[in-house]
Amino acid sequence: MITRSNFTLSRCSLNTATIKHANLAQAVDAAAAAGYGAVGLWRDRVQEVGTEEAGRIVREAGLEVSSLCRGGFFTGSDAEHARAAVDDNRRAIDEAAAIGACELILVVGGLPANPKPGMSAALDTGQPERDLRAARDRVGQRLAELVPYARERGVRLVLEPMHPIFCADRGVVSTLGQALDIAAPFSAHEVGVVVDTYHVWWDPRLAESIARAGAEGRLAAYQVGDWVLPLKEDTLNSRGYVGDGYIDFATITSWVRDAGYTGAVETEIFNVDIWARPFGEVAERVAADYATRVLPYLG
Amino acid sequence: MITRSNFTLSRCSLNTATIKHANLAQAVDAAAAAGYGAVGLWRDRVQEVGTEEAGRIVREAGLEVSSLCRGGFFTGSDAEHARAAVDDNRRAIDEAAAIGACELILVVGGLPANPKPGMSAALDTGQPERDLRAARDRVGQRLAELVPYARERGVRLVLEPMHPIFCADRGVVSTLGQALDIAAPFSAHEVGVVVDTYHVWWDPRLAESIARAGAEGRLAAYQVGDWVLPLKEDTLNSRGYVGDGYIDFATITSWVRDAGYTGAVETEIFNVDIWARPFGEVAERVAADYATRVLPYLG
Repeated sequence: MITRSNFTLSRCSLNTATIKHANLAQAVDAAAAAGYGAVGLWRDRVQEVGTEEAGRIVREAGLEVSSLCRGGFFTGSDAEHARAAVDDNRRAIDEAAAIGACELILVVGGLPANPKPGMSAALDTGQPERDLRAARDRVGQRLAELVPYARERGVRLVLEPMHPIFCADRGVVSTLGQALDIAAPFSAHEVGVVVDTYHVWWDPRLAESIARAGAEGRLAAYQVGDWVLPLKEDTLNSRGYVGDGYIDFATITSWVRDAGYTGAVETEIFNVDIWARPFGEVAERVAADYATRVLPYLG
Repeated sequence: MITRSNFTLSRCSLNTATIKHANLAQAVDAAAAAGYGAVGLWRDRVQEVGTEEAGRIVREAGLEVSSLCRGGFFTGSDAEHARAAVDDNRRAIDEAAAIGACELILVVGGLPANPKPGMSAALDTGQPERDLRAARDRVGQRLAELVPYARERGVRLVLEPMHPIFCADRGVVSTLGQALDIAAPFSAHEVGVVVDTYHVWWDPRLAESIARAGAEGRLAAYQVGDWVLPLKEDTLNSRGYVGDGYIDFATITSWVRDAGYTGAVETEIFNVDIWARPFGEVAERVAADYATRVLPYLG
């Protein structure tokens, strides 16, 4: 049995995506009952009740909001998609400010689909756009459009490098070093980066990139989830509990600690089987894994 | 219709894994009939007929051997596995020399499985080893053991960086830059690298790493295959024909050309549906894709 106290779990955060089928009140209840210090929220669960009520639910449970997921998906190449993406991200920034999340995590989007809505048949090649450098350049352009808006509302935009398995369709930012390069034109208070072990564990330059993120003051969030095999056909939802897979949490957590990170550790697991379990059971398991496999290395 | 000549396809090579169910004679027949200049061979198809006969089959068809796949899988952490892996790689080097392949491609292996054969129950944690840096360090150690043997037989060892989706179980070398770092202690004639578009297309540093490989004289092979979605549950065998997916072959091929590469371009596609098609049909399709999507950018 693991002995826990609020102190033990004070930095432990339950990302609500880990118990995807819980509404906000259920998720907050599960986290509070298991002794967590914080929750990481997804916009859909916040929107269901509205930002004011969402903020109240979290505060009254004595929890912090460690982050809001997610903005982004703004790599579209045409003006119509770009405009819609910027508008949606402004709404996400508003929501983050309203619930007291000082950080909005951005999954930037993949290569734009083609054909696009409204595209003429003459222009429709029936194939995806393939100019990866152009899509990556657009990430910086969209950030430049969003940063002033976010700054005024006290929200930091946080780039999430994603595992290269998602480069084509979800996130063209593939390494932490690349995220830091894209963030470089902005101040550390404006654009940060998140380390999610699932996405970056394989990176040969991970140690130096985490140290760089710390030195630049951009290490905004630390998320944990494990790489388990075999991958399921639905690869997006094929992550495992911390400790069930191949990731060396002791080492990566030590690097995060040595980079000066003192914030919450969010467990974010996309897994259909875990989603099917009772919320409280999942919250207990996640807390136990955190206490044994992450906390000892967090300093 | 694409007009072809032997000149057009002189650098075009059919990796036999693309028509996995063909034996060596069938694969060579299909490649020769479609006008290819070379074939990339897998050891199993060579071993079935023996190296002497394999060499004769390829030569009499007027083809070159662009490479032999594959050695490697030498990241095991215990002495028994290390010894067995070195022995097997020496046999692969012998086979490469015997069939006139001057290059042996190495898929280095993933994190070692645990439990290991013969491990006592007391030591068996039932979990994989997770020390990724140690596994990566062992790649360099095994190379140091194998390079003298390969050099004496005129065979260059070629490191294959693999997509991070395979880091846990097949290849801990995840980027071209990392492969070049591991190759650095050896001469360019001893250890080279292969660029396989499927594995490296997402890498934000790909342009500079290809240029570096060229400048160092280590760019030993260029393999093409496309990233298609959705991934199949059997992710290893979920690759697509060149042009069917997200990869920008014009750009990557231009980088390979500008790096001074003048060798064969092997199409290597692992895909169960393609394996089920007639060999000649696949060979024709691959040649057509090469002629339209790769050759124009090859210089």
